Amino acid sequence: MFDLGATTPVLADFLAAERPTVLDALAGWVRIPSIGAHPVHDRDVATSAEWCAERMAAAGLEHVEVLSTPGHPAVYGDWLHADGALTALIYGHHDVQPVDPLDEWDSPPFEPTVRGRRLFGRGASDDKGQVLCHLEAIRGLLGGHGPGAVPVNVKVLVEGEEETGSPHFGALLEAERERLACDVVVVSDTSMWAADVPSISTGMRGLVAFDVHLRTAGRDLHSGVFGGAVPNAAHWAARLVAALHDRDGRVALPGFYDAVRPLSPAERSAFAALPLDEAAWAADASVGCLEGEAGVPLLERLWARPTCDVTGLHSGYGGDGVKTIVPAAARLKVTFRLVADQSPEAVADAFEAWARQRIPAGIRLDVHREATVGPALTPTDHPAVAALARSITRVWGAEPLLTRSGGSGPEEALGRVLAAPVLHLGIGLSSDRIHAPNEGLDLDQFGRGVLAAGELWRELAALPC
Amino acid sequence: MFDLGATTPVLADFLAAERPTVLDALAGWVRIPSIGAHPVHDRDVATSAEWCAERMAAAGLEHVEVLSTPGHPAVYGDWLHADGALTALIYGHHDVQPVDPLDEWDSPPFEPTVRGRRLFGRGASDDKGQVLCHLEAIRGLLGGHGPGAVPVNVKVLVEGEEETGSPHFGALLEAERERLACDVVVVSDTSMWAADVPSISTGMRGLVAFDVHLRTAGRDLHSGVFGGAVPNAAHWAARLVAALHDRDGRVALPGFYDAVRPLSPAERSAFAALPLDEAAWAADASVGCLEGEAGVPLLERLWARPTCDVTGLHSGYGGDGVKTIVPAAARLKVTFRLVADQSPEAVADAFEAWARQRIPAGIRLDVHREATVGPALTPTDHPAVAALARSITRVWGAEPLLTRSGGSGPEEALGRVLAAPVLHLGIGLSSDRIHAPNEGLDLDQFGRGVLAAGELWRELAALPC
Repeated sequence: MFDLGATTPVLADFLAAERPTVLDALAGWVRIPSIGAHPVHDRDVATSAEWCAERMAAAGLEHVEVLSTPGHPAVYGDWLHADGALTALIYGHHDVQPVDPLDEWDSPPFEPTVRGRRLFGRGASDDKGQVLCHLEAIRGLLGGHGPGAVPVNVKVLVEGEEETGSPHFGALLEAERERLACDVVVVSDTSMWAADVPSISTGMRGLVAFDVHLRTAGRDLHSGVFGGAVPNAAHWAARLVAALHDRDGRVALPGFYDAVRPLSPAERSAFAALPLDEAAWAADASVGCLEGEAGVPLLERLWARPTCDVTGLHSGYGGDGVKTIVPAAARLKVTFRLVADQSPEAVADAFEAWARQRIPAGIRLDVHREATVGPALTPTDHPAVAALARSITRVWGAEPLLTRSGGSGPEEALGRVLAAPVLHLGIGLSSDRIHAPNEGLDLDQFGRGVLAAGELWRELAALPC
Repeated sequence: MFDLGATTPVLADFLAAERPTVLDALAGWVRIPSIGAHPVHDRDVATSAEWCAERMAAAGLEHVEVLSTPGHPAVYGDWLHADGALTALIYGHHDVQPVDPLDEWDSPPFEPTVRGRRLFGRGASDDKGQVLCHLEAIRGLLGGHGPGAVPVNVKVLVEGEEETGSPHFGALLEAERERLACDVVVVSDTSMWAADVPSISTGMRGLVAFDVHLRTAGRDLHSGVFGGAVPNAAHWAARLVAALHDRDGRVALPGFYDAVRPLSPAERSAFAALPLDEAAWAADASVGCLEGEAGVPLLERLWARPTCDVTGLHSGYGGDGVKTIVPAAARLKVTFRLVADQSPEAVADAFEAWARQRIPAGIRLDVHREATVGPALTPTDHPAVAALARSITRVWGAEPLLTRSGGSGPEEALGRVLAAPVLHLGIGLSSDRIHAPNEGLDLDQFGRGVLAAGELWRELAALPC
């Protein structure tokens, strides 16, 4: 089942012997419908946390504890017997995305099913399988091989609210800062370019999101009686949205790009080295044309450039037939993705000032900030990145290319609060269909992930502490 | 109850004697909840038509018939014994607007209630009371006064679908063209400037309405994974909407104003003579600022200039919290109000071509036409307008000023299909709160409306046929 390549004999032997057990564990966890967004599944998320805690203990981790939050619980465990060696904090999450549309699943999302070399089920890749790589690697190394088998100190933190925006994660980090103290953070919640093109992500974009309300009148007005002399909320909302970008696809907020750290020549070449077929990418995205900042290559636009997307725009009537009104209200949901070294607060202030300046007095404008996530960027010349690259090279048989991720997650908070570099050991593939029907995990990648965890600790142990 | 002024003695005597009966009739009709838009009231609309037919017969009209349509029924009756005199077709409607928000009514909408000099109830002003002016005038004149009492031939057509856009009215007019043949159409479904500033409307705007669908991708896309490289449906919809007007508030479709007939100097002076307090008008409209074509006076913008209002704009997420998507679809509802001599078909073609030209290949654009109403304009120098003005002067004791209406209705079809000038004898007031809670009818206006009907027939009978 697992194609293991030539790596750590201990873990290779372990996987060869324990294959059914490891798969059973994966299936057992995926079977728990820990959908964080749906309150009807609150109990399931708690069950998932308890399952994870038991698995941590079974792997040999100590101080295992379910950490309650005002929302869904996280789980913690550690193994701190590598005296004098550095400490790695492993991060992942055990909550999963909702499953609709249910009728597009070929097998039920919470009935894990192996077809071909893939295990299908919600959360198999995002993120239970990736967390399990670490737990199984620890179990394999610690099981009967004595205290020296794991050459670094490891702490494992498995969050329960990642899919709902980690609303309590920052506070948890702050509160547990001492217990979580580490030299390096290892996040396993991302993807590689391809199974035969291993890669390391070194950045996540930040995010600032707004809920904007416009009100032009006390009530919707009859367009025959008032049309031509009163402000129309749909028009003003549209003018704001249309003005967000210039003709070159650049975000039009004054100073928006001022703090953007340019891509290094090394990273630019790394991105250019990735085998990208833009037509296939567009087809995969189900779009008929591509857009974005003029003159900037596709991957740079996705990973290294800030963007603005209106995620919702609603005003007036939306049904069939004619309703002859001048809409009195409009609502916009606006998000900015940010990159190093942009400040979410500065961008938020700039957006609010820009919007106010564009809306006439007499029209009410309310701007609410809904989310703020800082951009995360791991220095590509950090020795831990090189250590991760060597680990991956050994397992995948090819040197990893450098990538970034366009998404936003808790990585920035992890790196900032714990003051440690963030490594991404992500074994997902774009074919995993995360967040979509028929999510699945490539079992070869899963096995390699277990090995790569072991390799990474060996490599990290060799670094000067 | 009725302040009648010095007019037709027959009708004045009739009203003085029949006051309770006339009020009972109004209350009885208003009591029928003939809401055309709500299928649960279909039977009530039919009951309202039957009530109207009975009242026509009681008034002395002949050939009374409920005219069924694929939707709600209309009602017809005539009195054609004025040999050699011209024929007037009276138009009104018996369906009413919905009543929500119900809790804002001071008395239930279908329990007619007199408070002060006003009868409150849905449909009292729009349009049962205005139709009843004619039916009661006919009853008053024909009752015991012999065949010469009505000096013109009258036909009365009371529609049942005006409040739902008259979807079958054009076909009804075409089918009944011979029965409805007339020399002049009298529409009683509009308002006067004020009780002490009587007025005559001479125009209605036309309308062309669109349902526009944009699709940029097969599915909503993750804004972290795809944002910055794929088209966003909300952005493209907003760009279309923002481009509909230029900086001077003019509609930006090429050639949009080419066919607009300029206001005559006489009409311009007539509009300027109306006592308008723009601040009070804005307060009544519940807006904090006014807009529209730069340099064009308010009433001209409302009545004599074409406009464009987006009545709905919907794309992506509209709830609380952050949903990190690039919306794949958007829907716009776009309406244009048109004036003489614009062609709805030409404007519709221009809009479609303009929209297509602004949306890149690769983005799907579907434009559906939902409604087409031509602009209506009665020549202000037509002798029938002067006849109407004399009638109003006699009843209200003041010469009526010329106005227009910014709305769109069946008037254009009436004038076009029947090839006759359309007169507006409208006795509503802006304080009637039509389409809103606490609709009511000023009972002085109601009484004057009965008298004015009688005066109008006398005046029309004196015109060369």
